[in-house]
Amino acid sequence: MAAATGKAAPLRILGIDPGSRVTGYGVVEKVGHDLRFVSCGAIRVAPGRPLAERLKEIHDGIGEVITSLRPDVAAVEEIFVAANPRSALTLGHARGVLLLAAIQHGLAVHEYPARVVKQAVAGSGRAPKAQVQHMVRVFLALAGAPSEDAADALAVALCHANHCNGLPGVVS
Amino acid sequence: MAAATGKAAPLRILGIDPGSRVTGYGVVEKVGHDLRFVSCGAIRVAPGRPLAERLKEIHDGIGEVITSLRPDVAAVEEIFVAANPRSALTLGHARGVLLLAAIQHGLAVHEYPARVVKQAVAGSGRAPKAQVQHMVRVFLALAGAPSEDAADALAVALCHANHCNGLPGVVS
Repeated sequence: MAAATGKAAPLRILGIDPGSRVTGYGVVEKVGHDLRFVSCGAIRVAPGRPLAERLKEIHDGIGEVITSLRPDVAAVEEIFVAANPRSALTLGHARGVLLLAAIQHGLAVHEYPARVVKQAVAGSGRAPKAQVQHMVRVFLALAGAPSEDAADALAVALCHANHCNGLPGVVS
Repeated sequence: MAAATGKAAPLRILGIDPGSRVTGYGVVEKVGHDLRFVSCGAIRVAPGRPLAERLKEIHDGIGEVITSLRPDVAAVEEIFVAANPRSALTLGHARGVLLLAAIQHGLAVHEYPARVVKQAVAGSGRAPKAQVQHMVRVFLALAGAPSEDAADALAVALCHANHCNGLPGVVS
């Protein structure tokens, strides 16, 4: 019979910042109210390759991240208001294969609007990128600043960590 | 030693018309200059389901089509000029997982602009949908008209059949 320790089970959250060239990822672990940095990085795809091959690289790349870091759940920014339909379509391709990889690995996928992510980590839905980057570093007590893409991904993970106690994100 | 028959090997072409709710597909077989209808249909996804699940259904659906119909190559319309960034993003999600499925099954993916597809089957880059649907039926000697989504997919496959002798499409 398992002893009741009163401790919450750790929850590993994978945050993803989708991009057609660079996809940031960041994993944090939440134990009760404590947050711990696990890992972060970026999946970079050479722009010259054919589109389908690049999508396979993104899909396989996040798959390797999921296999090695074993998150319990994934969190992604809900929408990117692209400047034009073409860039939105391009981003959609990458985002599609990332969401697919998450669900293929059995992860529930939560989506949060950008302003909710910024509000969660920087206290303002309009916080600039540098402020988000700084606050992510402070929250996770990182020695150095993560790259912009990794910081955005960690911010989404932190946002989910914040919301999964109370308000749920949109389950994608 | 194989006898030289002088006959070209048949080429099975999978045409795909991506959509977030309905994805049309059509397979034609090209033997020399002859074209033969193989199959067509649509993958329909219930709109109420979470996005990642819908993408998995689209991905798995086209995977089943590829497994059962065994095409040699895939052809997809190159770009959809969406009315707004949001619908482009939505379409991009579906298109991304379709291209991924094709390359995961070892198919080369060719992309053709919509006007090239229309030109190939209806003689005009601005042909309306009904005309495309009619010409697809004529070209493939179909007893009945295929659905609009399936007809668009067959049109892309016919376009590739037309171009793969001469001008190549953009390899995606």
